[in-house]
Amino acid sequence: MGNSNQIITLLTDFGLSDHFVAAMKGVLLTVNPDLNLVDISHLVPPRDIFTGAFTLGQACFRFPPGSIHLAVVDPGVGTGRKALAVSAGGHSFVAPDNGLLTYVLESQEEWTAYEITAEHYYCKPVSATFHGRDIFAPIAAWISRGIPLHQLGPELQNPVRLRIPAVKKVQDALIQGLIISVDHFGNLITNLKPEDVPRSFRILAGQKEITAIHGTYGEGKAGEVFVVPGSTGYLEIVAKDGSAASLLNLKGGAPVGVVLV
Amino acid sequence: MGNSNQIITLLTDFGLSDHFVAAMKGVLLTVNPDLNLVDISHLVPPRDIFTGAFTLGQACFRFPPGSIHLAVVDPGVGTGRKALAVSAGGHSFVAPDNGLLTYVLESQEEWTAYEITAEHYYCKPVSATFHGRDIFAPIAAWISRGIPLHQLGPELQNPVRLRIPAVKKVQDALIQGLIISVDHFGNLITNLKPEDVPRSFRILAGQKEITAIHGTYGEGKAGEVFVVPGSTGYLEIVAKDGSAASLLNLKGGAPVGVVLV
Amino acid sequence: MGNSNQIITLLTDFGLSDHFVAAMKGVLLTVNPDLNLVDISHLVPPRDIFTGAFTLGQACFRFPPGSIHLAVVDPGVGTGRKALAVSAGGHSFVAPDNGLLTYVLESQEEWTAYEITAEHYYCKPVSATFHGRDIFAPIAAWISRGIPLHQLGPELQNPVRLRIPAVKKVQDALIQGLIISVDHFGNLITNLKPEDVPRSFRILAGQKEITAIHGTYGEGKAGEVFVVPGSTGYLEIVAKDGSAASLLNLKGGAPVGVVLV
Repeated sequence: MGNSNQIITLLTDFGLSDHFVAAMKGVLLTVNPDLNLVDISHLVPPRDIFTGAFTLGQACFRFPPGSIHLAVVDPGVGTGRKALAVSAGGHSFVAPDNGLLTYVLESQEEWTAYEITAEHYYCKPVSATFHGRDIFAPIAAWISRGIPLHQLGPELQNPVRLRIPAVKKVQDALIQGLIISVDHFGNLITNLKPEDVPRSFRILAGQKEITAIHGTYGEGKAGEVFVVPGSTGYLEIVAKDGSAASLLNLKGGAPVGVVLV
Repeated sequence: MGNSNQIITLLTDFGLSDHFVAAMKGVLLTVNPDLNLVDISHLVPPRDIFTGAFTLGQACFRFPPGSIHLAVVDPGVGTGRKALAVSAGGHSFVAPDNGLLTYVLESQEEWTAYEITAEHYYCKPVSATFHGRDIFAPIAAWISRGIPLHQLGPELQNPVRLRIPAVKKVQDALIQGLIISVDHFGNLITNLKPEDVPRSFRILAGQKEITAIHGTYGEGKAGEVFVVPGSTGYLEIVAKDGSAASLLNLKGGAPVGVVLV
Repeated sequence: MGNSNQIITLLTDFGLSDHFVAAMKGVLLTVNPDLNLVDISHLVPPRDIFTGAFTLGQACFRFPPGSIHLAVVDPGVGTGRKALAVSAGGHSFVAPDNGLLTYVLESQEEWTAYEITAEHYYCKPVSATFHGRDIFAPIAAWISRGIPLHQLGPELQNPVRLRIPAVKKVQDALIQGLIISVDHFGNLITNLKPEDVPRSFRILAGQKEITAIHGTYGEGKAGEVFVVPGSTGYLEIVAKDGSAASLLNLKGGAPVGVVLV
C-alpha cells in the first residue's frame, strides 16, 4: 500500500454552490495529480472559526497518520493574519492563524507550527480575497509532494487559539455549561462530559427542565427531550425523533445549567 | 484495470455540515487507504428510511459489480436492531437492518444476508450513537480488503423490509397511486408505471386535474403541469420550468388518483 | 505520474439530495473505473444556464490540462437541442448545446466543437429525461479512455452562446453594469473590472450609494458596504462580516450604476 494516494482533507465555510472549493481542488491536483481529496465540510457557517475548529477536531484524527488537512475559514484573508502549517499527531495542517486549529492543538501534547512565508509555492498573482486558492491549496499540495514544513517558513511559538469554553462549577451541586454545537439533527452538543454529571440531575436548557438520560437516540417516549452521552465525548441534549434545537429554541453558545440532586 | 481502487459508496441522513461523514471516511481510509469513496447522498431527510431506500435503489446498481454500498439511516442506532451485510446482484451492502435495503432486496431474485456480529472489526470503544463510524464503516472497509461476508456473522433469513406502496386498481378505470418521492426540481415521482396508464387519463393530485403527458420536461406551455415518463421507470408529475411540488403543494405519501377515459 | 487517474469534473443543477449525481458517477466508473471524479457544483440554481456557465468558467481551467469537464444544466433535455463535446485550452468538455460552455468558449482563442451523435456509446435505453446519466456521462467516460472527440460526431461551427452582459458606458463618467453572480457569502459579483473604475466613484446599487473600495473583506467598519477587487477578476460589492445581498436586497441581474467623480 506504499502507492496509496496522499490524503488531503478540506474544510471551509465556502459553501457548495460556487466555484470556490473546485478552484482549490483544481490547484491541488495541478501541483499533485495523485491526491485523494476528501471533504470534511464546506458548510461551516460563514466566518464561524469556532465551529470550523470543532468540526475539524472531531474529524481529522480519524484519518490515517500522514494525512494533510487543509482548513480555510478565513474572515481576515488578505489582512495581517499569518498563514500556518502545523505538524501534530502525525498529521499536517494548513490554515490561517486565527484559531481554526484550536482543537487540534489542544488535543496534542506536542506540535510544531510554522508561519508560511515561502512565496515561491504560491499561485501568482495572489488574490487578496482568496488565499484558499492561491496560498493554502498550493502549500498543502507541495507538502503532499514531500516538502517538509520547516521549509515553508519560520517556526511560530504561539499560534492563535480560541478559548474553549470550560464547564464552571458554581457550587458543589451546581454546574454551568453551554451548547458548543448544534448538529444536522438538531441535537445540542454541550461542553459537559459524562463525568461532570455522575448522579441524578436536573438540566435547565432554554425553558426546559431535563431529568432523563438514555444510552441511545432511539429510547425515550415520542417528543421526549433527554440527555445522551454523544459520540463526540460530550453530553448531548436530544429529542426523540425530532430536533431538540427547534423544540428548545436554542443555538450554539446558549447556557446550560446542571443541578445534581 | 486490475489495480483499480475498490469503490465504496456512502448514503446517510447525516447532512453535510458536521464531521459525521468525514469521520466515517477517515475510518474507511484508515482500514483501507486504497478506496474510491463516492457519495450517493447525505441529505436523506433525517430518519426517513423509505427515502433512503429509494435513493439507494436508484443509484447502487449503476456502479460496477463488486462495488460496496455503505448506507446509514439509522434512527435505532444502539438499540436492539441488527446490523446487516448483504450480497446482491454482484454488489455488497452494509446497513442497519431496518428496511434501508428494501429496494435492493426487491430488485434482485437472489441475495444473501448476514447479521454482523464480528466485533473484532469494530472501532473500539463503540459509541452507542454512531455505529456509522464505529461499526458500519470499518466493516465496509474490511469487506473491501477481501473479508468474505460469511465471516461477519450468521446468515439472516428475513432482513427487515418496508412495504413498497403498490398501485391499487379500485375499479377497471380507476387507479389509486401515490407520490413516492419529490426530487430537487420539485418533480413528483409517483408509484405509477407507464403501463398503468395505457390510454387517455385524468390524474387528480392535490387540487389539480392533469390530462397531458409529454415525453420531456421541455415540452408543454409555461406553468403547465403534466406527466412525464421519468428516468426512474415511474411516471412523474412535473411543471414546465417550475416545481410541481410547490404548485400542487404536495409531498411524498400524497395520494394520486387516475381515471382512465 | 503517468499513471495518475484521469480527472473528470462534474457540474450540474441536480442538487445533492437525490440519486442523480451518483447515478452519473456509477455510469462513469462502470466505463472507466480509474477516474478521479471531482465535483465543481451540483447546486447551480435549477435551469440557470448562465450561473452554471459562470461557475464552470471560474473553476475549469484551474484543473490540470487533460481534464474532462462534464456539465449538465439541461432544461431542454430530450428535445431538439444538441449534445456537445468541445476541446478548448487543452481540456475537454461535454455538455448540452445550450450556452453552458459560454465562458469556456469566450476565454479561449481557439476551440473545436463536435455534435455528439455516436449513439453506440450511450447507455441504453436512453431516458428522454436524464441524458446526464445515459448520454453525457458515458461519453465523458469514453473520452477519458482515449476516444478522440472527432469520433463522437460531426464538427459544429456555432455552438450556442449566451450573451455575456457587457458594461455600458452611458456617458464619459457614467457606467452601467450589473450583478452577474451572488456568492455563498452574499457578496455581489459585478461585471465591472477594476480598470472600469480608475478613480473615485459613487456606485448605486439597490437603494445604496457606495463610495469606498478596500483591498480585502476584513477591512471597513462593522456593517459597512464597500467594493473589493474580487478573486474572479471582477469588482464585488460586499458587506463587512455580513451579506451584501441581504443588506441591499439584490439578486443576480440587478443593475449597478457607477458615477466617476
